This record gives sequence, C-alpha cells and structure tokens, in this order.
Amino acid sequence: MNGLDQDSKPHFRSVLIYGMGMMGASLGWALRSRLSSCTVTGIVRTEKSAAFIRNNGLADRVLVLPDLSDCAALDLDSHDLVVLGLPVRSIVELIPVLPATDTLITDMSSTRREVHRSATERPDLRFVGAHPMCGSEDTGPAAFVKDLYVDRLCILTPGYLSEVRHANQKKHREDARLVEQFWRAMGMKIYYLDPDSHDELLAYLSHAPHVVSSILALWALSNRTVDNSIRESPMPITGGGFKDMARIAGSNPEMWTDILLSNQDNLIASLEHFVREMRDIIECLKNNEKNDRQDWFEWFARARRARNRLCWYSEDR
Amino acid sequence: MNGLDQDSKPHFRSVLIYGMGMMGASLGWALRSRLSSCTVTGIVRTEKSAAFIRNNGLADRVLVLPDLSDCAALDLDSHDLVVLGLPVRSIVELIPVLPATDTLITDMSSTRREVHRSATERPDLRFVGAHPMCGSEDTGPAAFVKDLYVDRLCILTPGYLSEVRHANQKKHREDARLVEQFWRAMGMKIYYLDPDSHDELLAYLSHAPHVVSSILALWALSNRTVDNSIRESPMPITGGGFKDMARIAGSNPEMWTDILLSNQDNLIASLEHFVREMRDIIECLKNNEKNDRQDWFEWFARARRARNRLCWYSEDR
Repeated sequence: MNGLDQDSKPHFRSVLIYGMGMMGASLGWALRSRLSSCTVTGIVRTEKSAAFIRNNGLADRVLVLPDLSDCAALDLDSHDLVVLGLPVRSIVELIPVLPATDTLITDMSSTRREVHRSATERPDLRFVGAHPMCGSEDTGPAAFVKDLYVDRLCILTPGYLSEVRHANQKKHREDARLVEQFWRAMGMKIYYLDPDSHDELLAYLSHAPHVVSSILALWALSNRTVDNSIRESPMPITGGGFKDMARIAGSNPEMWTDILLSNQDNLIASLEHFVREMRDIIECLKNNEKNDRQDWFEWFARARRARNRLCWYSEDR
Repeated sequence: MNGLDQDSKPHFRSVLIYGMGMMGASLGWALRSRLSSCTVTGIVRTEKSAAFIRNNGLADRVLVLPDLSDCAALDLDSHDLVVLGLPVRSIVELIPVLPATDTLITDMSSTRREVHRSATERPDLRFVGAHPMCGSEDTGPAAFVKDLYVDRLCILTPGYLSEVRHANQKKHREDARLVEQFWRAMGMKIYYLDPDSHDELLAYLSHAPHVVSSILALWALSNRTVDNSIRESPMPITGGGFKDMARIAGSNPEMWTDILLSNQDNLIASLEHFVREMRDIIECLKNNEKNDRQDWFEWFARARRARNRLCWYSEDR
C-alpha cells in the first residue's frame, strides 16, 4: 500500500471513483491531468454515463453497476484509494455493505455526521471523510468541470481520535494525512473540522441560505402585485440583486432534498435563529422613534462588514 | 416646447440633469451617445464632481451648487426636460421649492410614493415620475456606466389621472408620453404602474431582499462555529451560493437607509410575510412525519419554477 515517501508525495497508482456524477467525473479529469501516472477506474450506473466517461477520457476503465449498492463482487484491494462519489444517502447505505478491504476510503459528501456515523460502524475500514467544497447546480458526468478542485477548500472530517480504538489511532492519523495529500494533489486547500461543527457550519453558510433562497422565490411570487406585474411588464422586473439571491433556488431539487434531510436539526436551529433576527428588524422598523437614519446607516454598514469578513473581501469591495 | 412630431421622436434640444451621481453621470453619457444634438447641462454639488464631468465629456455645461436645494436662482425654462438625479429624500425636499416653470420634469428615484405625494403638492409643475431600474452598488459620477440604460426597464408612475385637475388631464397624458419617449430614446423598455403598486412591488423584488441579504450576513457571523471557522480556515468557507446571497449586503449603506425609510410600511408587511413562510418551513422540518422526500423534492422544484418565472428564465435554467 501507499505510504509517505521522502517528499511527502503519496503514490496513488490506482484510484477507484465510486460514482461518477458531476463531482466524480471532474475528479477523473483532475486525476488524469494532475496524477497522470495514476490508473483511474470509475463505477457508474448506466451505459450512457460509461460511454461519456470513455469518450472524454475521464477514466482508464469504467464498470457499469446498475444498482450502485451491489458492491459484493467488487475488488477494492487492487486500488490505493477509493473515492465515494455518491450522494450522502447512498453513501450511508453503501458503507455498511462494502466488502472488507485494507484500501483507504474517502468521500465527497456535503454533510458529514451521517456518513461519519455510518463509518464508525465499520471500524475495519480505513475511512477518512472529506467534503471538497465545489458543488454546482448541474448534475451528471456531462456536467464535469475542468480544474474543479483547484484552489478550492476541502474540509476533512476524520472524526475525533478518541472514537478510534486506541491501537489504531496512529494509523488513523496517518490515513488522514494520506487523504489530505490526495486532495492537496488535486489542488485543494485543507481544513480539518469535526463532523458536528462541519454540519453546523454548513447549515449557516450553505444549507439554510439555500432554503432562504427557495423561500424568497415562493414568497415573492405569492404576492398578487408581483404576480400581476411580471405578467404585464415587457421584460423581467427582477434586478441583479433578486436574481443573485434566487440563483440557488434553481439548484437540483433531488440533491437538496438529500442535504436538507441529512442536516435537519442544524437547519431548524439556524432558521429559527434567522427568524429571530428578522423579528428584531421588523420591530425596529415598526418602532418609529427608533427610525433614526444614523441607526439604519450603521446597521447596513455593519452588515456590509460582516459580509466582507465572511467572504474575505477587502473593506472597499 | 417639444412636442410629438410625425415619427413620434421627441426633440429634446436641451436637457438639465439635476444631480450627477452614478445615475446622472451615466445619463449624461447616454445623452451624448444617443441624442448627440441635445445640449446637456449638469448640476453637481462639488468642484471635484464638476471637473470629472467636464473631463469625461458627460455634459456640455456644469453648474456647481454646494446646496442642491438652493434652486431659486436656477433657470429651468430654457430646457426641454429636467431630470432630477437625486436620492428620494433630496427630491422630496426639492420639489416644493422648485421655481415655477413650464418645463417637463422627471426623476430617477427608486421609491415612488413620497416623490409622487410631493409632486401632487405642486400641480403647477409638469412632473412625470420615473424609476429607471439600473442601480449599482457604486456611487458618485466616477462610477458612471456606459449604456447603463440600454435594454433595462423604466417604470413610469405618472399617478392616477383622477388626481390631476380635469382640465389638465389631456396635458398630463401627453407629458407622460413625452417622458416615455425620452426614456425610450435612452434605450429603455417602459412599464406603467401606479406609485402604490410600484412601492409594494419593489419591496418584494428589491428592498426586502436587500434587508434579507443584510440579515443573512449578520446572522451567519453571529454564530460561534462560523466565527471560529472563518478565523481558522486557510481560505473563505463561503461558497458561490452564500456570496451571491450576501452580495447586496455590500451595497451603499446611505442609499439603502434612504430607500428603507421611504418604504417602511411595505417593508414591514413583506418581511412579516417572509417570516410566516419561514415559520411554515420550520414547522415542516420539525414535523417528522411530513419529512417525506417527495414533499421536499416538490417544494424545491416549486421554488425553482417560481424563480424561473420571476426572472423569465426558461425551465431548464
């Protein structure tokens, strides 16, 4: 098996990408472009996907597995790394039934606790979870993106060492380093986080904003004046601000149903927090004495600073 | 004065742009480019702005008026059209004190009721309000944009004819047509709306989304896990979705304080409506029996369709 050699560059001679949708197909491209000596094997569900992967040279070998959980006959041992490229729900169903193997396993799921819980039930597997943050609204291998992973953030969630049997802690730490090196080799920056913090963080920075964007679209269209006006106007009335805020409401409903149902508690808590903040602002708007220009100016300026900090923009952006 | 000639192209030989910030300076550019025979006079507050306007050829003549409401000595009669390029608050203060004139007047304010109320107090003026929908986060003449008005929507709010003294109704209708032709000449598409509907519509499609974007930024940063993570991460954790949703939280706080305070009632009503929608979604998330994949899938799909309708996107976008 692979190990750390002198210059800390791991040798991944053979990588299996288990599920080649947008993310997996883009990973195939990244491997061919960045680790050209590595043999890439892909698993897909349909002949159509397999043909696309082959025609675009996104893998050296493609296996078609109509039921992706039907993994009993798979040879995982001949690879240095298995990357699970399936949605969270499928991963949670797959991990418990994976054949025993000594091969390192990672994934790309955007919520971590369920995957992590599922992996701790299989202490025989060398699993180090990862969330490469480079989603897209588009799905399927044909939506693959060149250089998708370059200069993007990968959150690694190997979990607490205390969860690993003492004898295996050193190995688990080494495995995390190997997975880190793999994603670094794809061009990513690495940030370690425990699965609980990850899912809370993502509720705030991705999942709840997504729900807010969807509510925004439904809320606006349910107003009668809006509905009438968009019928009568000679062109869209929505400006750049609305379009930007509603953009992610156009994302893939299936993927987002998965994400929502795998992070419900954090979503509920963060959305309730959002409602409290909205209520405060509504109260300020209603309280006429408080409608001091200076107060609102400072509130907007504070929001602008918060946004700049969150997005790492300089103050003048 | 100008009138409708055979081909319905109005002759604007001389236009006064009263206030040349981003919008006014862009209008200067548009006039020089699209009505090259028209003489453009600009009024600005500082010598610095005047120098910029002159150096960039955005007007033929520039007057500096340190107090923009100090209009008593201005000659409005020698122009065919006066375009008020000031924020709503300044316009509302200016209209009552404008010198008597027979020159047609329009404006560019993004809330309409206050301007409209102010104009109805001056029935001697030939005022037809307009909201050219092409804002920007940037302010000042140096932020002028070439072709800012081309293929954008201009909402005209001449108000109800019943508000105009009977004898003047025909003239008011003609004036609205002239102002319509002016904005069409700038490349805009025209949509007529009454001031009340305009402000309700804009609360939904612009002002409330802006407040939601600002709340989003403050809400996210107030979470401890988010705050810790953005300090520790090697790069921004916010993805494209969050950045898009928080973009307008970076807008000019002064301009938005103005807009917020001139559309408070609609903002309160629309934000309360938003809170009700959020509460419904939180209840669905809490009610486990309802957490049927199919229901959430349909909800996301419905939000996607609403967003596509609002933004005039085709279904597959």
